[in-house]
Amino acid sequence: TQSYRITLLPGDGIGPEIMAVAVDVLKVVGQQQNLTFEFNEALIGGAAIDAVENPLPKQTLDACKQSDAVLLAAIGGYKWDTMPRHLRPETGLLGLRAGLELFANLRPAQILPQLIDASSLKPEVVEGVDIMVVRELTGGVYFGSPKGVFSTETGEQRGVNTMAYTVAEIDRIGRVAFETAQKRGGKLCSVDKANVLEVSQLWRDRITDLSSEYPDVELSHLYVDNAAMQLVRWPKQFDTIVTSNLFGDILSDIAAMLTGSIGMLPSASLGADGPGVFEPVHGSAPDIAGQDKANPLAQVLSVAMMLRYGLDQPAAADKVESAVLTLLAQGYRTGDIQSPGTTVLGCKAIGETLIQI
Amino acid sequence: TQSYRITLLPGDGIGPEIMAVAVDVLKVVGQQQNLTFEFNEALIGGAAIDAVENPLPKQTLDACKQSDAVLLAAIGGYKWDTMPRHLRPETGLLGLRAGLELFANLRPAQILPQLIDASSLKPEVVEGVDIMVVRELTGGVYFGSPKGVFSTETGEQRGVNTMAYTVAEIDRIGRVAFETAQKRGGKLCSVDKANVLEVSQLWRDRITDLSSEYPDVELSHLYVDNAAMQLVRWPKQFDTIVTSNLFGDILSDIAAMLTGSIGMLPSASLGADGPGVFEPVHGSAPDIAGQDKANPLAQVLSVAMMLRYGLDQPAAADKVESAVLTLLAQGYRTGDIQSPGTTVLGCKAIGETLIQI
Ligand SMILES: CC(C)[C@H](C(=O)O)[C@@H](O)C(=O)O
Ligand SMILES: CC(C)[C@H](C(=O)O)[C@@H](O)C(=O)O
Repeated sequence: TQSYRITLLPGDGIGPEIMAVAVDVLKVVGQQQNLTFEFNEALIGGAAIDAVENPLPKQTLDACKQSDAVLLAAIGGYKWDTMPRHLRPETGLLGLRAGLELFANLRPAQILPQLIDASSLKPEVVEGVDIMVVRELTGGVYFGSPKGVFSTETGEQRGVNTMAYTVAEIDRIGRVAFETAQKRGGKLCSVDKANVLEVSQLWRDRITDLSSEYPDVELSHLYVDNAAMQLVRWPKQFDTIVTSNLFGDILSDIAAMLTGSIGMLPSASLGADGPGVFEPVHGSAPDIAGQDKANPLAQVLSVAMMLRYGLDQPAAADKVESAVLTLLAQGYRTGDIQSPGTTVLGCKAIGETLIQI
Repeated sequence: TQSYRITLLPGDGIGPEIMAVAVDVLKVVGQQQNLTFEFNEALIGGAAIDAVENPLPKQTLDACKQSDAVLLAAIGGYKWDTMPRHLRPETGLLGLRAGLELFANLRPAQILPQLIDASSLKPEVVEGVDIMVVRELTGGVYFGSPKGVFSTETGEQRGVNTMAYTVAEIDRIGRVAFETAQKRGGKLCSVDKANVLEVSQLWRDRITDLSSEYPDVELSHLYVDNAAMQLVRWPKQFDTIVTSNLFGDILSDIAAMLTGSIGMLPSASLGADGPGVFEPVHGSAPDIAGQDKANPLAQVLSVAMMLRYGLDQPAAADKVESAVLTLLAQGYRTGDIQSPGTTVLGCKAIGETLIQI
């Protein structure tokens, strides 16, 4: 048996509830596939702020570095929204991304036939949509310096952030994107704002140069405003999208919302080597925390992404994904994705049903 | 009779065709309302690059400054997409915005009942949507410095832009937004990325402070990724949105696309004093230029915005807007908004029909 060390970061809000389901699923698929997991739970986000006044304690980052993969649930809540920046849950998440050098964020948005009615878009517009957003995750305006609030010569306050990319940063995310597109539909759309921003022009030039190494991938470019529009107008035109940190934040959320069921969407954040972090796209939903109402399926599908991209266990990943599809086909739903004729279960019951499949 | 000097900037692609219709409409409404217009046509964008190698010739900016309002059609085309930045049509547009200090960009997105089927969203999701995006237009990452491609210490190329706002810049757009919301539904949603960006935190703090002066406006805040999602999920929750230059570029295009008919959407760009610029949201559509296929109605509705916001002639603006609604009610369409049972006309014929109404 292959054995893996997994760091679990349940975080805030519904995090612990959905994490519990994911761990059960992982144990069951491990038994089936002859894999064993050593779990190690650590603090992050608001929970870590409350416990040790640090959204990413050093022990947590160290534990992550020493593991084979990290499973994260969700962070944040109203309670910490007005704290100074170093005591914000988000700061812990950004620190984790930087600390593990997770420069590549993969965010799939796929319409499941059973959930097509959940979309706010017309069924004929979203039917069959299957998009992978490859978002750069450790650069751009999220991390550029100088940043802060400074006084101008006239004594006025000026808020500043720096949107920057080096050639090396663009190239490494570009390669991940081309390779991702190769394994998918063979189409890559690079999104920037090169008609206005110098950093985007460099991005476009490098991605264009790289494309000569991937002759089997069809490359196109869109400006970010147009890309956002096109996602809403006719999302089926997209296969793989590659873009910067900020644009990826926005576009991956649009792509997610096209499905109408963001409680279903996982993500993977990968570095050059070292462990990846696997987490749902949705947030910590503090309003329903502790009520056994959360949808744990994005967390479960994050387990599948962990098995596929983090541990190279595609057969186990397939098992998990097909179990989720079977569960839906059997008519089980959580409250967020219910529709007439389906059976609504709580978070725990969904988990219990899933591991029977 | 009141007389106005109007600078016309037809620009590129379909620009001249749709501008011709708008001018005809303006003449007719002028006769009806006892207004006279002195027109002055000037070069901008690709047309100006071709003629004088400058996307915003000094004569053009001077002419604009000396007029009461500027009517712009559209700029850009494949032909200039690979030119150096100072020879790009977009550079002319940015120069015009900066040169006239047009810091406030108003972009309405309204669903017309007759065109509801044009939306890619379900009718029940978009029915009655009426959103005004107030976008800051002369600051942020569009204009911040330093910008450019620089060599790092290790000799690597690094593309850089600076996202910055001063308190004064935030306050003046904030006031426009609160006043706009007052005249509309009384709800203002400010969009930023304050959980990550210092410049956004300053934005959020200032907008929050300003709100005490507008007790009749209900203020809320959203992060930009969530705002993009919410626009797709349930757009009716929005009344007026205020945001920075880059976020406004993206969000106003999403809002526009919700209507499914961006050939119908006008915009206004206003400064503290001096002339405003009024233009369609859509681009220059080089693929259909010169074929009499363009939809001139966004340009015509830009005339209405000019009459309302630029020349303070609301009665004339109402006339133009109701003529467009009547035209649609009579079943006339251009190709981009056709549906079963409607009569498709070319650009010119739409104009001729409109001025008969
Ligand atoms: C919580 C926030 C810092 C984060 C981001 O902006 O990256 C989130 O929106 C995401 O997309 O993972
Ligand atoms: C053409 C481009 C520079 C411009 C912008 O980004 O502002 C356009 O997208 C717009 O929204 O008016």
